[in-house]
Amino acid sequence: MKTPTRHWKAALLTSAAFFVAAPFSGAMAEDYNPEANTLAKLGVTVEGMKADDPILTAEEFEQGKAIFFQRCAGCHGVLRKGATGPALTVDVTHELGYEGAHDFITYGSPAGMPNWGTSGELTEDEVKLMARYVMVEPPQPPEFGMPEIKDSWKVLIAPADRPTQKMNDLDIDNLFSVTLRDTGQIALIDGATYEIITVIKTGYAVHISRISASGRYLYVIGRDAKINMIDLWMEVPATVAEVKIGSEARSVETSKFEGYEDKFAIAGAYWPPQYVIMDGDTLEPLKVESTRGMTYDTQEYHPEPRVASIVASHFRPEFVVNVKETGKVLMIDYSDIKNLNVTEIEAERFLHDGGFDSTGRYFLVAANARDKVAVIDTKEDKLVTVLETGGVKPHPGRGANIVHPVYGPVWVTSHLGDETLSLIGTDPEGHPDQAWKVVQMLEGLGGGSLFVKSNPKSDHLYADAPLNPDEETSASVAVFTISELGTEEPAFKTLPIGEWADIKEGQPRVVQGEYNMAGDEIWFSVWNAKDKESAIVVVDDKTLELKHVIKDPRLITPTGKFNVYNTRNDVY
Amino acid sequence: MKTPTRHWKAALLTSAAFFVAAPFSGAMAEDYNPEANTLAKLGVTVEGMKADDPILTAEEFEQGKAIFFQRCAGCHGVLRKGATGPALTVDVTHELGYEGAHDFITYGSPAGMPNWGTSGELTEDEVKLMARYVMVEPPQPPEFGMPEIKDSWKVLIAPADRPTQKMNDLDIDNLFSVTLRDTGQIALIDGATYEIITVIKTGYAVHISRISASGRYLYVIGRDAKINMIDLWMEVPATVAEVKIGSEARSVETSKFEGYEDKFAIAGAYWPPQYVIMDGDTLEPLKVESTRGMTYDTQEYHPEPRVASIVASHFRPEFVVNVKETGKVLMIDYSDIKNLNVTEIEAERFLHDGGFDSTGRYFLVAANARDKVAVIDTKEDKLVTVLETGGVKPHPGRGANIVHPVYGPVWVTSHLGDETLSLIGTDPEGHPDQAWKVVQMLEGLGGGSLFVKSNPKSDHLYADAPLNPDEETSASVAVFTISELGTEEPAFKTLPIGEWADIKEGQPRVVQGEYNMAGDEIWFSVWNAKDKESAIVVVDDKTLELKHVIKDPRLITPTGKFNVYNTRNDVY
Repeated sequence: MKTPTRHWKAALLTSAAFFVAAPFSGAMAEDYNPEANTLAKLGVTVEGMKADDPILTAEEFEQGKAIFFQRCAGCHGVLRKGATGPALTVDVTHELGYEGAHDFITYGSPAGMPNWGTSGELTEDEVKLMARYVMVEPPQPPEFGMPEIKDSWKVLIAPADRPTQKMNDLDIDNLFSVTLRDTGQIALIDGATYEIITVIKTGYAVHISRISASGRYLYVIGRDAKINMIDLWMEVPATVAEVKIGSEARSVETSKFEGYEDKFAIAGAYWPPQYVIMDGDTLEPLKVESTRGMTYDTQEYHPEPRVASIVASHFRPEFVVNVKETGKVLMIDYSDIKNLNVTEIEAERFLHDGGFDSTGRYFLVAANARDKVAVIDTKEDKLVTVLETGGVKPHPGRGANIVHPVYGPVWVTSHLGDETLSLIGTDPEGHPDQAWKVVQMLEGLGGGSLFVKSNPKSDHLYADAPLNPDEETSASVAVFTISELGTEEPAFKTLPIGEWADIKEGQPRVVQGEYNMAGDEIWFSVWNAKDKESAIVVVDDKTLELKHVIKDPRLITPTGKFNVYNTRNDVY
Repeated sequence: MKTPTRHWKAALLTSAAFFVAAPFSGAMAEDYNPEANTLAKLGVTVEGMKADDPILTAEEFEQGKAIFFQRCAGCHGVLRKGATGPALTVDVTHELGYEGAHDFITYGSPAGMPNWGTSGELTEDEVKLMARYVMVEPPQPPEFGMPEIKDSWKVLIAPADRPTQKMNDLDIDNLFSVTLRDTGQIALIDGATYEIITVIKTGYAVHISRISASGRYLYVIGRDAKINMIDLWMEVPATVAEVKIGSEARSVETSKFEGYEDKFAIAGAYWPPQYVIMDGDTLEPLKVESTRGMTYDTQEYHPEPRVASIVASHFRPEFVVNVKETGKVLMIDYSDIKNLNVTEIEAERFLHDGGFDSTGRYFLVAANARDKVAVIDTKEDKLVTVLETGGVKPHPGRGANIVHPVYGPVWVTSHLGDETLSLIGTDPEGHPDQAWKVVQMLEGLGGGSLFVKSNPKSDHLYADAPLNPDEETSASVAVFTISELGTEEPAFKTLPIGEWADIKEGQPRVVQGEYNMAGDEIWFSVWNAKDKESAIVVVDDKTLELKHVIKDPRLITPTGKFNVYNTRNDVY
């Protein structure tokens, strides 16, 4: 097992940029009053300013607010109560002082704070502004309850006006929904021909795509909390309904339990901290539930427990909702939403993303700020255990399920903070000694990995490293051969995906492997700047050779890719 | 059926005083800044004040805060979002203006606002102060999470040091726990000898007493959220553990389902809006859960959904927690509190108190600001229905279960706002046509009733009227003979309980009938001012004649009385 390398800090720098939040829309509930925020009143000194100067003008406050939401809120929280990053409430920042804040923002910290100043991501003026901004009370963003959600809801094509049969000759199960991050779009790409079928306008920086149980509907959610529901039966698939469930969000899912196929959708918001259950056919918002409440461990009130990932149970009519700041996993029974039954499982702070084991019974979710994974039994609705992954800041995506030649079925996560992959036993019946333990640590390319990937039909396990500061590393992928895994640390092959894409300009990163339906190809995004060429590289999973490069002027900043079949069946 | 009489307004006046809140302890989270609250900045004009005058000095603000918590918060909420009374947020009060506020506080309103000024409950200076106080933002009271709760927790006698058998010759099941409202005590009174066994120091104005399933432990909760756990096996029963679960509270209950007897206690707070599950033996706080969330109907976020009544289910290992402002009934499964299962039933705003039907299956709870009762099926954990009671502001206490000669089993509530009693059919199998309908309205003494009472062994149904402005009425009790109830409106007898108590000074009110264990006597509190003589009057339930008057210098301001047998078995 390796200790964290120098990569992790730089990785987190870019990680924060990757997970950038959309700015809040709408007016703030509380206005900033410069007169109430003079240096004297705050008890703060700033070089070159007088005691009765307001620390910020109203205009500077607005600027600071926008930068904070873009750059800082993802880790520190909108209300600055802390999550992946520490709390930045005014008691903390006043203790730190302006100079201290300025230094942190400029140089970062070994604890994971990006060096916004020296990296050039913020100008010196912006650094100064932010060092002053954090000295004043954070503005309370507006609520976004049912009235606002209803206002945003549009049914573009009513169910009765939709096709009654598939009107295209697409192989829907082999379509890929690809996030075009910076254009606020997704591209639908045919898995066999590699052709872009259509590009659809969505919310900002679509975080994930999910497919209804029947495979007909595609739901995508932007970081601005806008959901598009896309009908894949239409001649040209298009949005049939849309709704905004908050001002910032990450997750959407659909009901999958027998008898409830396509019936409900759910989405979870970062702000306001809430989840919303919707009609699966129209996105009509039916139920809004706040996640504000007590942390699982200290049992103190938290005003901003954000909804991280959501999955649909295969064993009960339930959604599995992961609440970051309180460290609770909520099992939401959707069979009777007027008498809503929820099992609230004490897990670990701060929950992020995760996936099922190969049986679909156990859900493994990263508590990444605590370097742990919590295991939930979705059949019994109970916590199985919380374990340390052995790495720094696990970021599994949905993880990868492989059958290890020695240890049996394991689930794999890579890490944001170091180069390790952790293999966790998931077979309590067949391999009780290995169950819910880290049975092996592999060493990948370096820190800054976001996603691992495998497929039941494959002998390969892939790990990307898009947030690694090394240009070549962040454009490559590590591949392990599963049948060659033993008790010793194995070697991996490096696939130069970025090189294969043959891109002339920019510094593209390679991110997120996704299999086609057959499980014999794996696709990687070659993610370049918005004004530069990007690509998707298709690798032959058997030979590990380049099979195809998808390039198209419309393919701008591709990141997440979601194969319909794999996504709707939780194959990973 | 009668329409509301002139009594209801005056009744509500005193009702507010009856339900007075304890002042918050501890420092406020936000300090008041006079400079930020000048008339000009608030946009308010006050006769005799200049635009740049602060509307309140810091000292006046503290005074206003104390009066608001004492007099106003019960109806308007600590955060002034409205409940039984309307919202008093600054947008509302600024619209109303200082003069308008002054008038409302002085004269009251037909909508139920007490006439604090003309009644003399507030001085003219206090009225002026409060009219100014409501123009500024309400202070946010401090949180009271697990750290604060744990700090307050004391085990005075550990379980191992307690008696292993009953050490006294008390007939525990026939004890009465009597709230001595203004002294912050309860009196334990022997049901056979009428002797005060002991007086125990408790929290402020104990709201209710509850008994553990075994009958051994008595739990009482003050309005200051302090719980005393009293061991009735001790030679002289005394407090063995105590804890404070918030800064203001109303409800406590203990686990009653088979296998969980005496295992858990639960208490619900008004502030912070939360409930706390405790170890039944020691009051060790185990789990704190916030009730902050969305209203059931408009699905907007409410920052202060207070916990009203709590009962223990007989059909499942569950507590039934009624949340006032959101209008939700929470079925809290205590069988596994690490994986806490809660069914959240959409009922009606603003839930207050209620009780079971005679079978213990159905729980009927008043949504008193909406003149409705919600019926919960505790076997199926579902809402049965919400019905209008036909009266104004139902206040059932736990209600009364009687078998009506025509309509079969009914549950009865009286009303704060008028003289009616509503009889609601509770027998969906035997009397399906009557089930969950108001089958009959009776006319009692007048508005201002708090409690009805009957007993399975009795042919009588009693209704008090302590909040009626008429002196004689508020000191009397109406009695209906159950076997004489027909389809016509029956006459009732008036028992002059106050007269029977023979009290020389003051204006005592008669409140809350409670049966002895045998069900052949009913006790009423004759509740006088703190410095005047009070009494308990015991009535022979068969003859309706005076049987005994309990007088004792220690019996100061007696209000609620809880017979151990009836309370622990939900007999009412």
